[in-house]
Amino acid sequence: MSMEKRENYNYFLSIPTRWIDNDLYQHVNNVHFYAFFDTVIGHYLTQVGQMDYQNDSIVAFAIENMCQYKRPLRFPDIIEAGLRITKIGNTSVRYEIGLFTEGFEEPAALGYFVHVFVDRNNENKSAPIPAKIRSALEQIYQINS
Amino acid sequence: MSMEKRENYNYFLSIPTRWIDNDLYQHVNNVHFYAFFDTVIGHYLTQVGQMDYQNDSIVAFAIENMCQYKRPLRFPDIIEAGLRITKIGNTSVRYEIGLFTEGFEEPAALGYFVHVFVDRNNENKSAPIPAKIRSALEQIYQINS
Amino acid sequence: MSMEKRENYNYFLSIPTRWIDNDLYQHVNNVHFYAFFDTVIGHYLTQVGQMDYQNDSIVAFAIENMCQYKRPLRFPDIIEAGLRITKIGNTSVRYEIGLFTEGFEEPAALGYFVHVFVDRNNENKSAPIPAKIRSALEQIYQINS
Amino acid sequence: MSMEKRENYNYFLSIPTRWIDNDLYQHVNNVHFYAFFDTVIGHYLTQVGQMDYQNDSIVAFAIENMCQYKRPLRFPDIIEAGLRITKIGNTSVRYEIGLFTEGFEEPAALGYFVHVFVDRNNENKSAPIPAKIRSALEQIYQINS
Repeated sequence: MSMEKRENYNYFLSIPTRWIDNDLYQHVNNVHFYAFFDTVIGHYLTQVGQMDYQNDSIVAFAIENMCQYKRPLRFPDIIEAGLRITKIGNTSVRYEIGLFTEGFEEPAALGYFVHVFVDRNNENKSAPIPAKIRSALEQIYQINS
Repeated sequence: MSMEKRENYNYFLSIPTRWIDNDLYQHVNNVHFYAFFDTVIGHYLTQVGQMDYQNDSIVAFAIENMCQYKRPLRFPDIIEAGLRITKIGNTSVRYEIGLFTEGFEEPAALGYFVHVFVDRNNENKSAPIPAKIRSALEQIYQINS
Repeated sequence: MSMEKRENYNYFLSIPTRWIDNDLYQHVNNVHFYAFFDTVIGHYLTQVGQMDYQNDSIVAFAIENMCQYKRPLRFPDIIEAGLRITKIGNTSVRYEIGLFTEGFEEPAALGYFVHVFVDRNNENKSAPIPAKIRSALEQIYQINS
Repeated sequence: MSMEKRENYNYFLSIPTRWIDNDLYQHVNNVHFYAFFDTVIGHYLTQVGQMDYQNDSIVAFAIENMCQYKRPLRFPDIIEAGLRITKIGNTSVRYEIGLFTEGFEEPAALGYFVHVFVDRNNENKSAPIPAKIRSALEQIYQINS
């Protein structure tokens, strides 16, 4: 995942940092990077994929994620979170995320996130990705990445 | 603090909600409202008041804050955080904050926040508000509120 | 709310601080104090009051809270969160919280929190406090405080 | 990292969940698992390794971490966070973490975390692990894991 640039991602969300994101070393704490991942993915699923987290029976649970930290962030940096999808299975999806900030070509952080879709009305057992969401995921799928 | 409108505030910051802000009742948890307060204030102090939280000797510590919750927020709501100042003392300042969202005239939440300025190089004892910050605070001070 | 001591509270929960609680000034950020309030209250409601946040129709929403910061906390401090109740209405309750740490008689912070009970199956309209919860609340009610 | 048990870890810290950890699906959100990792590691570094995050020139920054989610957690679960070390370099260290809860032999989550040590007084350039910390790290190093 080296030499990543903005053009390698298909969907972007602007995420301003918050005062509380800064930790005792005056950088955004590593934990919050996962909140950024979670937010760009949740934004895509709800705004493009029309997932309704209040009413849909089938929703997505995290099963694995990872982050590499390349460059510190600091309040009040504004993050441009880039998203792409590199694997779409029957019940799961793998996203890759790059976090960029203005003035830098290289990302501040890179990571991936794997969701499994589950049916809340069937004991959270895994379930096929709903058609409306699958269609959205396919829009930012990158076969060769 | 009733019937507050956007026009009662002098400085605004857009704060998008994050996926993680939603709690088990699928609303933004009360705790995060204080992160919104903290963020609009920190933004004002650093961007207008030129407070440098890394290097300045004199910084601001919270001594009291309060929030009234009027209407639930939910990811992906975008908050318009309004700020005004209603008291500027020698070493302390009182901010009032209104959190608005698009399409609603009345705020989702109202609160206040009191900072005391302290000198990190003098055992965190209270210290006069630095001139550059006082000047910024006076810009959004409302004598009659 | 001055000169508060542990003996003024009826229920205690131990809440260890986390690394991430520390903010850029290397103290626990003010926002997290509300997470401590929320946790001791939620613990009391679910463990003593048998509130089931997954299945109960009637649950509690925050309508107002406040905190006064007396003394900084720092990871890895362990907080002893004290709870009492000073008002029980038909649909609402007022809690008061003191946050203590070992070796100090005086609290690090004091605050209050007001819950309104709402019916999730009736558009979140306010609803009488369920009997099982009312009974628990009465156990730590202090008429004269 | 399959079939992990408590006995595979050398140091444990009890981390109670908080009300706010629960997300809109009423499970502890994935992001907070990294706060648990960060906390058990920070506890070890400061309490066993005597790292002083306020005054030491050399401190540790996250460069990579990962988590696999095996079983949901829920407030008020109490986490037993297990820690071991599988690589100690000149300037970096790799930790592995297992998060357990009472009544379950298998972990709720597994992950790793890589720290690089940096010198705050030398532009945050990487620096050899201080002797007091190296000595602590070696106590829970597992050569064959």
